[in-house]
Amino acid sequence: MPVRVVGFDGDDTLWHSETHFEVTQAEFRDLIHRHVPEADADTRLAEMEMKNLSVYGYGVKSFTLSMLETAIELTKGRIPAADLEVILGWGKRILTEPTRLLDGVEQALRELGGRYDLMLITKGDLFDQESKLARSGLGELFLAVEILSEKNADAYRGVFQRHAIKPGDFVMVGNSLRSDVAPVVELGARAVHIPYQVTWHHEQVPEDSIPSAGWRRAGSIHELPQILQEL
Amino acid sequence: MPVRVVGFDGDDTLWHSETHFEVTQAEFRDLIHRHVPEADADTRLAEMEMKNLSVYGYGVKSFTLSMLETAIELTKGRIPAADLEVILGWGKRILTEPTRLLDGVEQALRELGGRYDLMLITKGDLFDQESKLARSGLGELFLAVEILSEKNADAYRGVFQRHAIKPGDFVMVGNSLRSDVAPVVELGARAVHIPYQVTWHHEQVPEDSIPSAGWRRAGSIHELPQILQEL
Repeated sequence: MPVRVVGFDGDDTLWHSETHFEVTQAEFRDLIHRHVPEADADTRLAEMEMKNLSVYGYGVKSFTLSMLETAIELTKGRIPAADLEVILGWGKRILTEPTRLLDGVEQALRELGGRYDLMLITKGDLFDQESKLARSGLGELFLAVEILSEKNADAYRGVFQRHAIKPGDFVMVGNSLRSDVAPVVELGARAVHIPYQVTWHHEQVPEDSIPSAGWRRAGSIHELPQILQEL
Repeated sequence: MPVRVVGFDGDDTLWHSETHFEVTQAEFRDLIHRHVPEADADTRLAEMEMKNLSVYGYGVKSFTLSMLETAIELTKGRIPAADLEVILGWGKRILTEPTRLLDGVEQALRELGGRYDLMLITKGDLFDQESKLARSGLGELFLAVEILSEKNADAYRGVFQRHAIKPGDFVMVGNSLRSDVAPVVELGARAVHIPYQVTWHHEQVPEDSIPSAGWRRAGSIHELPQILQEL
């Protein structure tokens, strides 16, 4: 069945994201160790993020608030406000960093834009995602932009309805098996998985939990035009 | 020209919002005064929110981060982490409070839903707005939901395009002259202003800066069905 619409994830598919979080998380670990040398800052922060997900949702502001709460908790309230101010600064740094595109992204999108309708379908904080898209310079390449609070089958079903997309016409491209592949394949659409160098723990799912049919893996976005033609 | 589509703002139009912020802001003032009795906490917080708007956008998480930054700054870093943890708790409280509908909202929407296509067009944090809508129980009354990072003329133009709405068919209903009336009238659509008991300083604009034609004022949502029929 020929492809008509290609959806792209943003974070870690078109532009670098997780590496920014990783840099900050290493600084966070060092900061906590200055107060509590034996603390497992990474595990505790990951747990805090998951605990807060239903209240805060995804995104940098949520991450910042969870870092602050983890720091206060791990130091039993002994951390000075000046150190918490440093954490606030890290959040702003991530939010204002230039959008760094992955290698080959702009070329691939320009090539594919001549053949397919391109959509950006990202998850996270509305303001931050729009701001990143604006800084990316890629905005005019997409026919539509959907920023979702969660990328599950229901959310994709809503996208299909809003844009009159038949699942058979659609291919989703992204780095997350959980958010970009599994729910799309579940709806009878297809997906191309392009792994990023690091994956946020929350996005990791065992590969054998995903149907083996309906999706392909690419080493990089360079391979995408060829793969889409073969589908 | 007969009305076909009616757009509704959410915060302080359908459900109470600003009053939650005001309660928290009074607690914030008291907390700061325990450390710095002479501080003008309200002014400083308002300035901080405006300064951070281009980095954080709107919403409760942004408000929480700005409260934390203001508290650290006003106390010159002397505020104990335990007090900052209290501020984190206020943010979570606002985010999880039940959605309290304004008087008459559900009845008016049910009545109008039989005559017009209803849309929810809100501004703010995606996750928080979706969560509030879900808790409101009003979800199924709207044909479409648009959560925008900013409600200016460009944003409404995008809504009109995505939903094939002609400005002449559309009426926006909301409590903010700045976000719900001015940009809509600018595009040649109409608006009904329903003031709320308090208005966030950022949403206040001088009334003579808005064209006098193209919009009406209602005392409450009870008057809306009659007004829409007269338009």
